[in-house]
Amino acid sequence: MTHKTAAILAIGDELLSGRTRDANIHYLATWLADRAIQLKEARIVADDERAIVAALNALRAAYDYVFTSGGIGPTHDDITYEAIAKAFGRKVVEHPEALRLIARWYEAKGEEVTVPRRRMALMPEGATLILNPVTGAPGVRIDNVFVMAGVPSIFQGMLNAVETALERGVMIHSRAVTAMRLPESRLAGPLLAIQTALEGVSIGSYPIDGDEKGVTIVARSQSVRAAEAAIDKVAAAMRALGAEPVIGERPDREKRGR
Amino acid sequence: MTHKTAAILAIGDELLSGRTRDANIHYLATWLADRAIQLKEARIVADDERAIVAALNALRAAYDYVFTSGGIGPTHDDITYEAIAKAFGRKVVEHPEALRLIARWYEAKGEEVTVPRRRMALMPEGATLILNPVTGAPGVRIDNVFVMAGVPSIFQGMLNAVETALERGVMIHSRAVTAMRLPESRLAGPLLAIQTALEGVSIGSYPIDGDEKGVTIVARSQSVRAAEAAIDKVAAAMRALGAEPVIGERPDREKRGR
Repeated sequence: MTHKTAAILAIGDELLSGRTRDANIHYLATWLADRAIQLKEARIVADDERAIVAALNALRAAYDYVFTSGGIGPTHDDITYEAIAKAFGRKVVEHPEALRLIARWYEAKGEEVTVPRRRMALMPEGATLILNPVTGAPGVRIDNVFVMAGVPSIFQGMLNAVETALERGVMIHSRAVTAMRLPESRLAGPLLAIQTALEGVSIGSYPIDGDEKGVTIVARSQSVRAAEAAIDKVAAAMRALGAEPVIGERPDREKRGR
Repeated sequence: MTHKTAAILAIGDELLSGRTRDANIHYLATWLADRAIQLKEARIVADDERAIVAALNALRAAYDYVFTSGGIGPTHDDITYEAIAKAFGRKVVEHPEALRLIARWYEAKGEEVTVPRRRMALMPEGATLILNPVTGAPGVRIDNVFVMAGVPSIFQGMLNAVETALERGVMIHSRAVTAMRLPESRLAGPLLAIQTALEGVSIGSYPIDGDEKGVTIVARSQSVRAAEAAIDKVAAAMRALGAEPVIGERPDREKRGR
């Protein structure tokens, strides 16, 4: 079995101006890890054709799958389809099935398919649709590139829609141990010795931000047993330094940001 | 006055595995916008020398300033300084002043400067220090690249330490108007007409995620008056569609993620 790799290209001025904090990169990272696909790179660029084309062409050549988010809506600043088409050297054409889905969505609400709404069916030629379970207008797949919406609920719905199209790779398992009141610099020596003696396990050290210093050590491996054995060794090293290791992440970590 | 541009390279396996949601990109975006520097691109790569070197060399050639976050701690997985040195074709050497700062930090706490702690002074040759007001071990500046810590409190402290070294560009002002129960596709036509008639103002449309559909329109310009005039026009267009525009962003937006 081989490794499968992916990248995400998040598109939008608002992500770089400070207006909006991107949520899709982190969501995709977790979603892919659960499906044995490794997210290797993430990029954020503005609603700028040159920037989108350059980033997309670099990423689609380097990884098995590329997911984009943002810029496929009905307004003038939504230019992702034009940029993706340019990156692939294709024309933008009206996709009949996309138009049918968009029309069905608005007609069910008793609304018209106006010119801006119809614009959401102008897609790179030859693209395959990605169904949108939230607001009707679909995304597209072209080769190894999945072009999806930026609004998180729609992005997530589209991800579920493409799940069966993705080939899974080798699952990487992770196990963690946490010790408070232990600066990572005290653990660094024993940690290096443990990492050096192990094969097939990658150990990461993550200091805990905040007043009460602490550290979480994460072991990642294709083998659950190897990851667990590494964490047992780290826990023993923590105890030898007078700390009280707790298996797992710190419970409130998610709320603390990075 | 010219535009000043910047990019950020966030480094760390944990940002791509789903373990940690990066917080530094969004913080930097806001911080730079307040200082009239435009964040043009963000990238996240793993603790992988080849990936760091390739990304750093691309970004430092393209933008006025590049900020990196992560990978400068005392443990074996902290490889950012080695990678940055390689990108610049420099050696890694012990920086005497960095070592002095690190020693002073630990000695004040009655602790020893162990080998892993001393490792944090192994830096690209010829680098200038960035003071760390939080935990002692400094970051470095080389040419237009600022190499900083990944822990958000330290990243933010280092940013403040480099502020005076940055040349500011043209300030971009933004103004916003929000209407609930108005899908952006209904506003798209009038919005295009408003954008087409304006010069020097860039209008962005951001649908509001959640059950109660709505949209925020943001106008960005070097001129506060031009941004405000554009928002007045958009508010009038919203009213013409039967909506009730409120000047500004939706109050709870920050909590809703992207």
